[in-house]
Amino acid sequence: MAASHRLKPLSRVAVSGGTHGNEMSGIHLVKHWLRDPTELRRSSFTVTPFLGNPRAIEKCVRHVGQDLNRSFTTRLLSSAEAEDEPYEVSRAREINQTYGPKGSAQAFDFMFDLHNTTANMGTCLIVDSEESLLPMHMCHYIQTHHTWSRCPIYLYKLPGEETYAIDSVAKAGLALELGPQPQGVVRASLFAEMRALMACALDFIELFNSGMVFPAFEIEAYKITGRMDYPCYPDEDISAMVHPKLQDKDFLPLSPGDPIFQTFSGEETLYEGNTTIYPAFINEAAYYEKKVAFAMTEKCIFSIPSLQRE
Amino acid sequence: MAASHRLKPLSRVAVSGGTHGNEMSGIHLVKHWLRDPTELRRSSFTVTPFLGNPRAIEKCVRHVGQDLNRSFTTRLLSSAEAEDEPYEVSRAREINQTYGPKGSAQAFDFMFDLHNTTANMGTCLIVDSEESLLPMHMCHYIQTHHTWSRCPIYLYKLPGEETYAIDSVAKAGLALELGPQPQGVVRASLFAEMRALMACALDFIELFNSGMVFPAFEIEAYKITGRMDYPCYPDEDISAMVHPKLQDKDFLPLSPGDPIFQTFSGEETLYEGNTTIYPAFINEAAYYEKKVAFAMTEKCIFSIPSLQRE
Repeated sequence: MAASHRLKPLSRVAVSGGTHGNEMSGIHLVKHWLRDPTELRRSSFTVTPFLGNPRAIEKCVRHVGQDLNRSFTTRLLSSAEAEDEPYEVSRAREINQTYGPKGSAQAFDFMFDLHNTTANMGTCLIVDSEESLLPMHMCHYIQTHHTWSRCPIYLYKLPGEETYAIDSVAKAGLALELGPQPQGVVRASLFAEMRALMACALDFIELFNSGMVFPAFEIEAYKITGRMDYPCYPDEDISAMVHPKLQDKDFLPLSPGDPIFQTFSGEETLYEGNTTIYPAFINEAAYYEKKVAFAMTEKCIFSIPSLQRE
Repeated sequence: MAASHRLKPLSRVAVSGGTHGNEMSGIHLVKHWLRDPTELRRSSFTVTPFLGNPRAIEKCVRHVGQDLNRSFTTRLLSSAEAEDEPYEVSRAREINQTYGPKGSAQAFDFMFDLHNTTANMGTCLIVDSEESLLPMHMCHYIQTHHTWSRCPIYLYKLPGEETYAIDSVAKAGLALELGPQPQGVVRASLFAEMRALMACALDFIELFNSGMVFPAFEIEAYKITGRMDYPCYPDEDISAMVHPKLQDKDFLPLSPGDPIFQTFSGEETLYEGNTTIYPAFINEAAYYEKKVAFAMTEKCIFSIPSLQRE
């Protein structure tokens, strides 16, 4: 039997709410913890909650200049300050200084990032890739112990792409993506779910720090393969909606020939790919800006090796 | 038996989509009709679709300065142009010139106004008050002929309040309020529902114009009595969410002692009124700005006299 992978215990953990300023579960949860951090206390590590994008939160919009959660690339983080740069670029540098620097030994050990989607994605766990060992073990622990919900795992990084999300400034990270919830709305049920997920994830870290051995396992995850754009008129307005048969069917199989769009004049568009895919982020409000109707994923099984602290 | 109320036939009808720039059913429906108005054609009257708030639509926000749908008061419509006035004030004057002037003989005969809500209000028909005879007959016709949905009637005007909505510039009006739909999202099912409702309402006008006698009837409607604010912290942030037992229960009875809020720390707040009410617009995203958690209504039965064209 192979020896466990060994990683250092975690001592500093951060949690961002409001990386997108209109995703309210995480915003209100972090604001609550800033008022009363009692439930974040654990014996072997510290948890620091913070508001990712305070200016966007103030206005209840996703961002005020550009998407903060796409602003943690090496290029942007190392760029010189400029007067006309979007607010989020300077905010990303600030976050990188506080919780990073990205890729350095001083970086926080872990960062959680709390999101909502208008898509019917349930209680989704987002990791950059299956190669992130500690987050994959955390997901497995959550799936085993947080049994209210199914908790599908979404791997967001396309092959060859650099990590760009806020949690990439820490040594490891996990984003929680709860939906459906409209932008600007907090639903009590999702708030409770996010709070319970966070408690479960912090319990995992405590156990890891205590020296528990987490055995190897096989796990299902949805890995992004691309994005499906809306059909458009020549003036670039979208000309179709997500088909009613696809709406709310996140993480369910979509096969060649299945309907994906309904035009405003009533015609159907069928999926023309060669293989069955598993759409996610179906009809996410924030993706209209980029004319993206849904993300395409493949369902994979990964073998994750065992894990233990050093 | 009393003689029918007689009203002039309708010759000019307008339809606004995007009075709020992030309520997508009406925006896409009006954009579709501007491209292809075929389905709006009727023999006895004209239908003019238009985009209420183009600048807000462009940015996919409710408004860019102030709520357009609160800007049709006599005071604002008669105010002198000012350089620093919100865009919506000048846009309201423009709409009033084109489809009004409000209260004048030249005004359009009827205006539809197409809305969405994040609340679970279903297919709601909004009229200023039960005294608006033609709209109340239209609602009754829709309830009788559009049988997919229940179509509750919501009467929005508080006693003594002036009308302020966009459709008040025409001689009569009706707003369609379809939900739940997140801001910035178009769901195919609600789009189809709104389109069918409009077809049904236009059929009613055609029948009215043709001389059909619409007999008297009794009808149930929900009349606003006030608004319920969120509890707040001293810094004015909300301190509670809509209670999970109230969430999505629009138009259902709420009795004294029933839970209405859950604080972020987990306590319940109960409804302390003296009588049963019927909440609507529960957890509407756009009302957080004003700290409004829901509208309170009473369920009433009104006797509506018969109607016929002159």
